[in-house]
Amino acid sequence: MNIIDILIEKTIKTKNPTVVGLDPDIGKIPEFYKSEVKSQDPFEAVAEVIYNFNKDIIDTVFELVPAVKPQMAFYEKYGSRGVAALEKTVAYAKSKGLVVVEDAKRNDIGNTAEAYADGHIGKVEMTDGSFVPAIDADFLTITPFLGSESLRPFYNVCIKHNKGVFVLAKTSNIGSGEIQDVITPKGITVSQSIAQSISTQAERFCGQYGYSPIGAVVGATYPEEAAVLRKMMSKSYFLVPGYGAQGGGAEDILPCFNEDGLGAIVNSSRGILYAHMREEERQKCYREEYLQSVRRATIYMRENIYGALKKEYPNMVY
Amino acid sequence: MNIIDILIEKTIKTKNPTVVGLDPDIGKIPEFYKSEVKSQDPFEAVAEVIYNFNKDIIDTVFELVPAVKPQMAFYEKYGSRGVAALEKTVAYAKSKGLVVVEDAKRNDIGNTAEAYADGHIGKVEMTDGSFVPAIDADFLTITPFLGSESLRPFYNVCIKHNKGVFVLAKTSNIGSGEIQDVITPKGITVSQSIAQSISTQAERFCGQYGYSPIGAVVGATYPEEAAVLRKMMSKSYFLVPGYGAQGGGAEDILPCFNEDGLGAIVNSSRGILYAHMREEERQKCYREEYLQSVRRATIYMRENIYGALKKEYPNMVY
Repeated sequence: MNIIDILIEKTIKTKNPTVVGLDPDIGKIPEFYKSEVKSQDPFEAVAEVIYNFNKDIIDTVFELVPAVKPQMAFYEKYGSRGVAALEKTVAYAKSKGLVVVEDAKRNDIGNTAEAYADGHIGKVEMTDGSFVPAIDADFLTITPFLGSESLRPFYNVCIKHNKGVFVLAKTSNIGSGEIQDVITPKGITVSQSIAQSISTQAERFCGQYGYSPIGAVVGATYPEEAAVLRKMMSKSYFLVPGYGAQGGGAEDILPCFNEDGLGAIVNSSRGILYAHMREEERQKCYREEYLQSVRRATIYMRENIYGALKKEYPNMVY
Repeated sequence: MNIIDILIEKTIKTKNPTVVGLDPDIGKIPEFYKSEVKSQDPFEAVAEVIYNFNKDIIDTVFELVPAVKPQMAFYEKYGSRGVAALEKTVAYAKSKGLVVVEDAKRNDIGNTAEAYADGHIGKVEMTDGSFVPAIDADFLTITPFLGSESLRPFYNVCIKHNKGVFVLAKTSNIGSGEIQDVITPKGITVSQSIAQSISTQAERFCGQYGYSPIGAVVGATYPEEAAVLRKMMSKSYFLVPGYGAQGGGAEDILPCFNEDGLGAIVNSSRGILYAHMREEERQKCYREEYLQSVRRATIYMRENIYGALKKEYPNMVY
């Protein structure tokens, strides 16, 4: 089954087009995870905390959401031990039936872009000449700054290994327009020009619901631009950051969806993991109390987004 | 001493404004590295080959060049074991007195950008609240697609920890103009607009030669654009890809330099590691023969570039 259909069917089953971000920030993770740690080596200790934290979050949300989105920066910052925690997290999330969107915003050209694509969503060559999966995420976020030639190796790996990418098209941050809103010689913005290129590629690889895992990142904070991009990339799935902590509300995400209630998954990271308990409470609380708050935040997000979608698109497919 | 002065003094001492790329590609590394491997685990075996290969390259070039540039994609593609090989490579290169430029083209916003900056060139928080270096490269390449706000956390870490960044301004690939050459409302290209923003930041942090480690990536393949960018970023050091395998010659890199013969370091990766022996010869050769060819290619590159610079700028400082 096309990976996008797997994501869609999980979305329909959970009635939840959202994804929980796994951004393990050591400074914000509740204290009890740190006091319970067994490893003596400081980097191993961090990796242990990160994995135990993620495992609890996954156990709490896996029946409520279709997917999780580990943000690579929070793992990679601890080097190899952090990346090992990411690998364990990816494997555990998949074992619980979750789709894994790895947010790494990678970009490069030629054989270097191929190396990123192979490692994150494809297969890599071993010393005996065999090829095996390495990180093996289901989706990867990528950056188009080097031009569409830099994206092609990722598209090819998607089609070969039944994986997906979300290309940054219009990001949610305040300064995103600095480059992304500049008007190209075609009379459209850089974002829209990227959208055209994504759209052509998306046609190459679609699932049974008519969507493609060759998708785009489109921020919830620019709903008018999102509406334009939605039309331009009719088959591409959108990954939508900017909901919650960054200021986007449930109405703001509507233009990213189609009338079938599909076409996008909305991310929340800090809003689920850190924002719903006051810092002091979170640091002092017990596991059960903390995870109940994560569960409540996840359900609240589902109800908020599903409610807004159902109101806007009463004939949606779920 | 400012990290840029360390790079400059090594450049003057070796009479060599170049950097050897460490792009360990398992499919291209000579066969003897693979047949000598001791690890049973396939990913450990790859990491062992990568590190042994890099160690030999470093031992061969450390007295000839000021710096090496590991390309993160070739390590990260093997997940945590690959990143462990990178960490060992960075430490070994530094122990041999080399400056380490980590080519990772990272980009993100807010606390995620901070996480990248902290991990690659700063310090990271441990479970006991202390902060220690993780990957600890000297320089990191970063991508400006998310706007200048996304670059600020990296600049701040540079200044705090005496490190450097090379921001992608004009890349060497054929399709780089798709986004980078688009004209902004200011009447200049996206590349030039990025250059303006880098230049302002570079002023904040300069060494005794008048240069800043807040630098830019400017491709050798667009010498006319490089000349414009050189003027716009008078204090920023340039990392120059595109020489050799990508088609740029010694004359093409001249506009990236100033009359003092400083201001840039030129990278060659495949041209040093893989291009000077035919594929079949390289796979069958012995260590000594292979490393002699690496040494010859490194010296040839130095003579080629130093010769062109000396001819153009007879009063350069070395």
